[in-house]
Amino acid sequence: MIANDPYSELERRFGRLSAVHRAQAILNWDRSTMMPDGASDDRADQLATLGVIAHEIIVAPEMPDLLARAEEGASALDPWQAANLREMRRSWVHESALPADLVEARTRACSACEMVWREAKKNADFKSLLPTLSEVLTIMRRVGEAKAAALGTSLYDALLDEFEPGGRSARIDVLFAELRAFLPDLLGRVLEQQKHQPPILPLEGPFPVEAQRRLGEELIRRIGFDFHHGRLDVSAHPFTGGTADDVRITTRYDEQDFARALMGVLHETGHGLYEAGLPRQWRRQPVGSARGMTLHESQSLLMEMQACRSDAFIRFAAPRMRAAFGKDGPAWTEANIHRIYTRVAPGFIRVDADEVTYPLHIMLRYRLERAMLAGDLALADLPGAWNDGMRELLGIVPPDDTLGCLQDIHWPDGGWGYFPTYTLGAIAAAQLFAAAQRAVPGLMEAIGQGDFAPLLAWLRANVHGKGSIATTDEILAGATGAGLGTAAFKAHLESRYLKA
Amino acid sequence: MIANDPYSELERRFGRLSAVHRAQAILNWDRSTMMPDGASDDRADQLATLGVIAHEIIVAPEMPDLLARAEEGASALDPWQAANLREMRRSWVHESALPADLVEARTRACSACEMVWREAKKNADFKSLLPTLSEVLTIMRRVGEAKAAALGTSLYDALLDEFEPGGRSARIDVLFAELRAFLPDLLGRVLEQQKHQPPILPLEGPFPVEAQRRLGEELIRRIGFDFHHGRLDVSAHPFTGGTADDVRITTRYDEQDFARALMGVLHETGHGLYEAGLPRQWRRQPVGSARGMTLHESQSLLMEMQACRSDAFIRFAAPRMRAAFGKDGPAWTEANIHRIYTRVAPGFIRVDADEVTYPLHIMLRYRLERAMLAGDLALADLPGAWNDGMRELLGIVPPDDTLGCLQDIHWPDGGWGYFPTYTLGAIAAAQLFAAAQRAVPGLMEAIGQGDFAPLLAWLRANVHGKGSIATTDEILAGATGAGLGTAAFKAHLESRYLKA
Repeated sequence: MIANDPYSELERRFGRLSAVHRAQAILNWDRSTMMPDGASDDRADQLATLGVIAHEIIVAPEMPDLLARAEEGASALDPWQAANLREMRRSWVHESALPADLVEARTRACSACEMVWREAKKNADFKSLLPTLSEVLTIMRRVGEAKAAALGTSLYDALLDEFEPGGRSARIDVLFAELRAFLPDLLGRVLEQQKHQPPILPLEGPFPVEAQRRLGEELIRRIGFDFHHGRLDVSAHPFTGGTADDVRITTRYDEQDFARALMGVLHETGHGLYEAGLPRQWRRQPVGSARGMTLHESQSLLMEMQACRSDAFIRFAAPRMRAAFGKDGPAWTEANIHRIYTRVAPGFIRVDADEVTYPLHIMLRYRLERAMLAGDLALADLPGAWNDGMRELLGIVPPDDTLGCLQDIHWPDGGWGYFPTYTLGAIAAAQLFAAAQRAVPGLMEAIGQGDFAPLLAWLRANVHGKGSIATTDEILAGATGAGLGTAAFKAHLESRYLKA
Repeated sequence: MIANDPYSELERRFGRLSAVHRAQAILNWDRSTMMPDGASDDRADQLATLGVIAHEIIVAPEMPDLLARAEEGASALDPWQAANLREMRRSWVHESALPADLVEARTRACSACEMVWREAKKNADFKSLLPTLSEVLTIMRRVGEAKAAALGTSLYDALLDEFEPGGRSARIDVLFAELRAFLPDLLGRVLEQQKHQPPILPLEGPFPVEAQRRLGEELIRRIGFDFHHGRLDVSAHPFTGGTADDVRITTRYDEQDFARALMGVLHETGHGLYEAGLPRQWRRQPVGSARGMTLHESQSLLMEMQACRSDAFIRFAAPRMRAAFGKDGPAWTEANIHRIYTRVAPGFIRVDADEVTYPLHIMLRYRLERAMLAGDLALADLPGAWNDGMRELLGIVPPDDTLGCLQDIHWPDGGWGYFPTYTLGAIAAAQLFAAAQRAVPGLMEAIGQGDFAPLLAWLRANVHGKGSIATTDEILAGATGAGLGTAAFKAHLESRYLKA
C-alpha cells in the first residue's frame, strides 16, 4: 500500500492522528468540566501518552518519503486532496522541527510554570514567577529558533505560525499601526459621548443558575447550536472544546450578573458553529480542520460582537431576558440593556474589555512578547514595561501585577505568539459581517427576529465549509472581496459607538 | 534500552498501554453519560483507533523477544515485578492469539448485532436477531478456538479466561452442582416462610431525583467512596467505569422507586472501591489491575448483598431514608424496609432477581451458552431451551422472549463466557464477608453505625491491594483460608432467609 499509493497511505495515517486528537479534545474537556480534582496526575499521564503517540504518527520514519512521493504525484489529486497534502506537510514540518527532548521540556516547563502562575497571580507576586517563567521563555526561544529554521521565517513568526498558519508580524505591524492611529482618538470621542447618554441602570439579581442556563440554551439553539452534536456545561474558564461532531462549549454562571455569562455563551457558540460547520467529508483530515486562530476568533466575535450586541438582536433578546428572570422596569428596557452591552471603559483586565479598548490590550502584549523573545526586554523588567504600556495605550496603571502582567495564562502556558490573533479575529469578524450584510438581503431583520439561518448559511458557505482548503487571506478574499484589512472594523466601531 | 533491560522496557510499553486503556475508559464513560446522540460515529472512530493502537502496542514485533529475555532474567525480579511479567505474558497470549481480521470482524459483528438486539428486544422478535447473532456465534467460536490453541484450554475456558483469568468450567460445574442441589429446596422453604411474615408495605413516592442523589451520595461517602477521585452520574444502564484514580459510577433514578436505584449505587460503589484500592504503585501496570470478574463482582455483591442488605445497615439507613424524603409511618420502619430488601420471588428478569434465585438464572445461561458454542444447541432452538430451563430451574415460563432469551446484552455483545462470573462473585462475596467478620471484631456493629472503615481496611489489605499479584483462588485463600467454595454462601442464604 505504501509503495502504490502514498497519498492514500497518508490519509490513513492522518485519519488515525485525527482520531487521537479528537480523543484528546474530549479528555481535555472532561478535565475542565467533570474530572474530580484528585485525578489530575492520572489525566496528565493519559494526555501526555496520547501526545507522544500523536507525535510518533507524524514523525514516523516513513513520513518524509511518503510526503515526497505524494507531492510528486500531486497533479493527480483533486483540489481538496492537494490542499490536504499541503496541510500534512505543514503538520510534519512543525512536528519534526523539534527534537523529542525539547517537546518534552516544553510540556514539563509550561505545566510547572502554570502551577506557579496560579499562586503568583493570587498573591500579586511576580517575583515568585520569574524563575519558572524564565525557563519557559528560554525554551520558547529554542522552539522558535528550531521552527524558524524549518519554516524559513523569523523566530516570532515561527511561533505565530502555530496558531495562525502563514501569519507574519510584518503584516500585523501594519494592521496594528492603523488601529494604533485610530483607536485612542475614537476612544476619547466615545467616552465623551457616553457622558451625555442616559446613565446605565444596573440589572439587579439574583439570577438563578437554572434560569440562566435555560435562557442561554434557548438563545444558542436559535443561533444554530445543535444539541444533538454538542453540550453546554460549566467550567472555571469558558472555552469551546470537543470535536466537529461533538462540540463542547462551557460557561461560568454568576448569580449576580447574568449578562456577562450570557454573552460568553454566545461567543463560544460562534466558535462551536465554526467547528460544527467544517466540511463533513474532510473533518477527519488536516484540510478539514479550522484554518487558524484568526478565523476561529472571527467566528466567536462575529457572533458575540457583531450579531448579538447589535440593536436588532438586543430587541429580540430583551423580552426573553425579562421573561427568564421574571423582571421588568426601567433597567430592563432594550435601550438600557443595549447600553450595558455596548459600554466602553478602559480597564485593567483584557478579558473584561469592550471591543474599542480590547485591541489596545493586545498591542501591549504583542509588543512585550516580541521584545522578550528578542531579548530586548528582560523578564524582570516586565511589570514596569507593562505599566508604562498601559499608561501610554489606555491611560491607566494597574495597582498591582494581578491586575497587570500576571493576568493572562498565555505566557506561563507557552502560548507565545497567540495574543495577536484575538485582534486579527476582531478585524476579520467586522469584515465578514459587513460582507454578509451586503450579500444577504434582510440579514439584520432576520437577526432581529431571532432567525440566524441566513447568517449561518452564509458563514457555512464562505468560511466554515472551507476548512483549511486555502489561506486565511484567500478565504477572506473569497468571502469579502479582499484580504484582511481594518476598514470594516473601524467603520463598525464608528457606526456603533459614535451614533449621531 | 531494549538490549539492556528487557523488563524495564516492558514496563515502559505496558505503562503506555495502560494510559491508552485509561483514556478509553473515560471516553467510554462519557459515551454513556454525557455524549450527545449525534456523536456516536465520531466516538466509535476514536475508540476503534485507540483499540488498534493498544493492540499494536502489545503485538509489537519486539514483544516476543522482550518477554522471553525478561523471563530468562526473572530470578532478579521482586515478587511484584515477577507477577507483572506473568500478567504481561498473559496479555500478549490473549492479544496475539487472534489475527487482526478476526479482531476486526468481532468488533464489527458485535456492534451490528447489538443494534439489532435493541430492536428485537423491544419487539420480542427473536427471529429478527437470528442472522446477526448467528454471525456473532460463528465468530466467537473462531475466537475461542484461536485462544484455546494459545492457552491450551477448551474453547469455552478460553473465552471464560478473558473475564476470569485461570477460570475453568470443570471447577464451575462442581460449584454450580452444589448450588443446584441446594437452592431449589432452600427457595421452597423461603417462599413458604415468607407467607407467614407480615405483608410488605410499599414505599410510596414520588421520590425527587435530587433527594435520591443526595441520599446516595451521603451513604456512599460513608462507605468510603472518595469524590476527590470519583463521580456519581446517570446512565441508561448503571455501571462502574473510569480509572483507579478517577472512578466513575452511574445509576438510573426512578421517581416512583428509590429503593432499587439506591441499592444499585451501593453495588457500583463496591466495584468502585475495588478499583480505588488497587495498589498505588502498580495500578498503571498489568499486575496492578483488578484480578478478574469473579473478584470484581464479589466486591460489588459484598457491599450490596452482604453489608448493605444486612439488618445492621438497614437500621442505620432507614432513618436517613425517612429524612431524605420527609416520610414516616408503618411502611418506613426498619423491619418493613428490610423485608423489601430481602424479599425473595422467582421472576423472569435476571437483573431484578434476589440473591436466592439469581444463581439459577446464571446456571441457565451458563448451560445454554456452552451448548450453543459446542454446537449442541442450534440458535433457532434457543427460545424453547430457555423456556424449558426456566420451568425446570425457577418454575416459571416467560410469556415472550423480551422477558426470556432476549433480555441480556451479553450474547449479542460478544460477552460469551461472562455469565458464570456473576455467581462466582456472589459465592466469593459471602466467603470474604464471613472471613472479614471473623477477622475484624465489631465489624457488624461498625456497619450498623454507618462506619465502613474497618471493613474497607480489611478489603484493602486482603483483596484490593493485591491487584493481580496472585490468582483469584490464591487471593481468596490468603484472605479466607481457602479457595472458592460454596459453604459460606449457603450459610449466608440460610442465615438471612431462614430465620428462626
